[in-house]
Amino acid sequence: MSTKNLRALLDGDYAEIRDRVRWWLSQPGNEPVVDLPMEEHRAKVLAWVQELTAEGDTGRGFPAEYGGQDNVGGSVASFGALAFGDLSLLVKCGVQFGLFGGAILHLGTARHHERYLRAATSMELPGCFAMTETGHGSNVQALGTTATYDPEAEEFVVHTPSEDARKDYIGNAARDGRMAVVFAQLIAGCRQGSPQRAGGPGAGEDRGVHALLVPLRDEDGDTLAGVRIEDCGAKLGLDGVDNGRIWFDHVRVPRENLLDRYAQVAPDGTYTSAIENPTKRFFTMLGTLIQGRISVSGASISATKVALTIAIRRALTRRQFGVPGEPEALLMDYRTHQRRLLIPLAATYALSFAQDRLIAELHEVFTNADTGDRERRELETLAAGVKAIATWHATETIQACREACGGAGYLRQSRFAALKADTDVFTTFEGDNTVLLQLAAKNLLTDYKDAFGELDPLGTAQFIAGQAFGMLAEKIGIPGRDEGGDLLARKTQLELFKWRHEHVLGGVARRLKKGIGDGRDPFSVLVDCQDHVLTTARSWVDLVVLEAFAEVAGRDPVLDKLCSLYALSRIEAERGWYQEHGKLTATRSKAVIKAVNELLAEIRPHAEMLVDAFGVPDACLGDAKPVAQAAA
Amino acid sequence: MSTKNLRALLDGDYAEIRDRVRWWLSQPGNEPVVDLPMEEHRAKVLAWVQELTAEGDTGRGFPAEYGGQDNVGGSVASFGALAFGDLSLLVKCGVQFGLFGGAILHLGTARHHERYLRAATSMELPGCFAMTETGHGSNVQALGTTATYDPEAEEFVVHTPSEDARKDYIGNAARDGRMAVVFAQLIAGCRQGSPQRAGGPGAGEDRGVHALLVPLRDEDGDTLAGVRIEDCGAKLGLDGVDNGRIWFDHVRVPRENLLDRYAQVAPDGTYTSAIENPTKRFFTMLGTLIQGRISVSGASISATKVALTIAIRRALTRRQFGVPGEPEALLMDYRTHQRRLLIPLAATYALSFAQDRLIAELHEVFTNADTGDRERRELETLAAGVKAIATWHATETIQACREACGGAGYLRQSRFAALKADTDVFTTFEGDNTVLLQLAAKNLLTDYKDAFGELDPLGTAQFIAGQAFGMLAEKIGIPGRDEGGDLLARKTQLELFKWRHEHVLGGVARRLKKGIGDGRDPFSVLVDCQDHVLTTARSWVDLVVLEAFAEVAGRDPVLDKLCSLYALSRIEAERGWYQEHGKLTATRSKAVIKAVNELLAEIRPHAEMLVDAFGVPDACLGDAKPVAQAAA
Repeated sequence: MSTKNLRALLDGDYAEIRDRVRWWLSQPGNEPVVDLPMEEHRAKVLAWVQELTAEGDTGRGFPAEYGGQDNVGGSVASFGALAFGDLSLLVKCGVQFGLFGGAILHLGTARHHERYLRAATSMELPGCFAMTETGHGSNVQALGTTATYDPEAEEFVVHTPSEDARKDYIGNAARDGRMAVVFAQLIAGCRQGSPQRAGGPGAGEDRGVHALLVPLRDEDGDTLAGVRIEDCGAKLGLDGVDNGRIWFDHVRVPRENLLDRYAQVAPDGTYTSAIENPTKRFFTMLGTLIQGRISVSGASISATKVALTIAIRRALTRRQFGVPGEPEALLMDYRTHQRRLLIPLAATYALSFAQDRLIAELHEVFTNADTGDRERRELETLAAGVKAIATWHATETIQACREACGGAGYLRQSRFAALKADTDVFTTFEGDNTVLLQLAAKNLLTDYKDAFGELDPLGTAQFIAGQAFGMLAEKIGIPGRDEGGDLLARKTQLELFKWRHEHVLGGVARRLKKGIGDGRDPFSVLVDCQDHVLTTARSWVDLVVLEAFAEVAGRDPVLDKLCSLYALSRIEAERGWYQEHGKLTATRSKAVIKAVNELLAEIRPHAEMLVDAFGVPDACLGDAKPVAQAAA
Repeated sequence: MSTKNLRALLDGDYAEIRDRVRWWLSQPGNEPVVDLPMEEHRAKVLAWVQELTAEGDTGRGFPAEYGGQDNVGGSVASFGALAFGDLSLLVKCGVQFGLFGGAILHLGTARHHERYLRAATSMELPGCFAMTETGHGSNVQALGTTATYDPEAEEFVVHTPSEDARKDYIGNAARDGRMAVVFAQLIAGCRQGSPQRAGGPGAGEDRGVHALLVPLRDEDGDTLAGVRIEDCGAKLGLDGVDNGRIWFDHVRVPRENLLDRYAQVAPDGTYTSAIENPTKRFFTMLGTLIQGRISVSGASISATKVALTIAIRRALTRRQFGVPGEPEALLMDYRTHQRRLLIPLAATYALSFAQDRLIAELHEVFTNADTGDRERRELETLAAGVKAIATWHATETIQACREACGGAGYLRQSRFAALKADTDVFTTFEGDNTVLLQLAAKNLLTDYKDAFGELDPLGTAQFIAGQAFGMLAEKIGIPGRDEGGDLLARKTQLELFKWRHEHVLGGVARRLKKGIGDGRDPFSVLVDCQDHVLTTARSWVDLVVLEAFAEVAGRDPVLDKLCSLYALSRIEAERGWYQEHGKLTATRSKAVIKAVNELLAEIRPHAEMLVDAFGVPDACLGDAKPVAQAAA
């Protein structure tokens, strides 16, 4: 396959949108910031965002009636491509359009859309997404900020009751934000139909966390009464984004400011919601904001592509040591260098195809009105799992690429400084990866229970027999489950991944059931199985990612090898487990290592083509030169 | 064991010196830089270095006759403790006293010592260590800079013949350096005793890389004629160090400027050296500079201690999720958090004790005139291996600690920004880790060949029988080699580490021998075994580190558990290999995982004490608070 065709395959349905972003990134002045003082970086990022809004690109995911293009998938694809460039710009866009605009779109109703969406997508109204507090980042159901309804005034009183409840790390807050979507414990009148118990604020019931719009600054940028904002100051990275802390001192906003798609408060304070269970209601609201998480995984894959392009191109021109009397050897010809760079390259291809599947599912769920709870849960599981794996992959790969470039990679000009620093937070924001993998595992366990319940007696028996045989094989150490298929066959690889996931999932389900059955408290049972739970999610993501790669790998022999490299390098990494469970014999486990090494040698001649196909604009590669130029 | 006693054990023979550094770091104004513009950071670092020289601490490793204290070990210990603080200060000290001063001491002779050592250790003469070039960082035997002797003028002509040969990333060069130890291909007259062939420069033979002193700037700081210096500019980290590039245009220096301990050039150009073989000569010179490498591993261990102190203290006060109706659970009570932080904690203890063994060996080799080639090679192997493992451990652990602190860890105030950025280069400077592991493996293979050659027939037979049995066990998959000892017994753990190392070493020796025996070129044979070669070094370092920990672990039950955690977590990480080689059965491999989880739970109550014992000064912990204060 030519570089061009491979790039077309990678870019898929969104080739035009991605090329448009590449074009913008290639314009003089749009290259990533290398070394600017924080305030100048912030100003530049704001100007960039405004330029992008003028291009009309930032409203793509919004409804056409508010100036958008109803193209959710295109919007995430475009965001992903923007991540080749300055990541502060990316995150600022994510805050404004994805989080702030997205919350208004998904949690608000027509009156909010009409009043705010155009202003949000045009950056006329810079906004914040004020969810995280100092005391709660992961367990956001326990936020401390309150929004108490006062039926006399028909207003909500937004308040920060303790230092732990101040809003923290909020993007757009320190400098530009004029309004915030504030997540707070809603305190409002009695249940639907019941009379309001008392007139004053504080008399209602706690309804759990809801979102409402709270103005922060006036048009001159002055902070409004009752609002206190502090700059979080310099960060490890992303210094072009103005993160801040916000305290509210009994700030009053009109009743209409509640984003009331999932719950409403009537003028008299009566609280209504179509979703009875408060936890389910909260997670339904959160679920609509899934685009942010998917955008982060896309961004991390793009950042990984930048790093790999730089490091692999360098490895194809840099020489060191070798046979005496001959030109020194290219770094790319060393096996350690191949392991360091080509294994992550294979995984990046795999994740890239998986991300496109994720975008397609997102687009389907948010475009097709018929999608139900099951599709939404599937999307949530996939988004959580891929986000965790893709962001950790970015952190590891960017680090490996920096090291592979030695001192040259340590200069600010090389882009590794920004890539490392800016992507670092991806592993813990938009959901901490550890928490996300637990969320994915929880969903998988729910599906498992559903499926198990639905199995007919014969199916159940077969299922159990299969499990028992596996366990027997483990116990007596015979390699009965190792069927010896060709390691390079996709079928063998998929079967190994699938077997692992099913085995891990079944095992953890049994452990949890037994622990709870023994009368232990569920939390300690969960903590006790926590590493097993994470493995459940990880093994599932691995499988899904391999499936996504397998779908296209057959089109080209190099791609096919790359897919095998991804599959076998994952099996190699987990070969301890496969042997423990009698699924790989010792001999076959060693054969996996050998196969990985052979694949590396076979893929090595195509390394340049494989990174060229990513289509990272030259302007985003820092001081790295194309191979032909550097070798000349 | 009390925190105090544990700290005394960690500080060992150098407790007083380490406490002195802690005291200095705790003085107001000496806390690590959080956020200064580069030039201000550089100025501050220079002022700090000058302050430290005034305290008399920076010459500790130098001979008493030049104002030092003849305390090599104390000097490395002190350097390690300084790494709790600003790492730009540390690296600036390393460049000036370790590299520049160290090269004069070890490669020069009395006239250089008398003339320059006091000036170097007092910072009156800021200097550079100009080895690395743009084209050669690892393969420094192939440097391009030339130093051609001109017998007419009795001068060396130092020259940069190509862009690849410019000196690059040189610390102290951009701003402060007034003189450099320049490594260059020495071109000088014919062999010892032969007449000089021709009068002019360029007529001599290439003698390989030697070091000589070249002035860079005058007392006013102006660059001297023929010298061009460029600032490397902002870096990924360590911006308080002024790295630069240097070009020499036929710069003339007197003959006496050759650092001539290992090779001399007479006025007529006659070249003499006690070491006949040029490669051996070069590596003998390099070998004397080993202190730098040992200093880097010490620094990376200290930086890891800072990160672990911050993250573990936070995990002991931060709560998130938990049993409904109860206070949320402490992060430290989650198994994933324990795995994330306590396993690296155990490894950090292990490496800390190994580092002290390394310091003791360094002190012995450089203090005891009787040490021979064998001791020096041992020290080189140990230094290379521990440096690689300790610096990679730092990179991984600091990252894990940042993630464990979530958003709080992403603020510049938290120290993670500097810890991550500054320590990053440790994995590739003072020897790229991959290259260092190969160096270590090469030495181990040399020892192996020596030992094998010396074995008597009976010993050889036993050795071969042992190997054969091991291979048989692998082939038929029986667990014959798994002797089923108590996993918590130190003896079992040591035996597993030892068995692994011996098996890997023997295997790679056979593969290399066979490859070369088959007539293949040695370089391609090496590349083919490269991952196996790295494993050889890694398995040896693991063993040495465990031995160092095992020596002290028996003194205290908590320390004993921590040592088991280190051992078993390494075995867990390599359990794929152990099963492949019939050394662990599947059942026993699973038992290792279970034992690790149990040890985590047992060590958990002692986590605070274990980080307190590191004695990281509060001033070096950024905005992190002690547990008691944060919990209050």
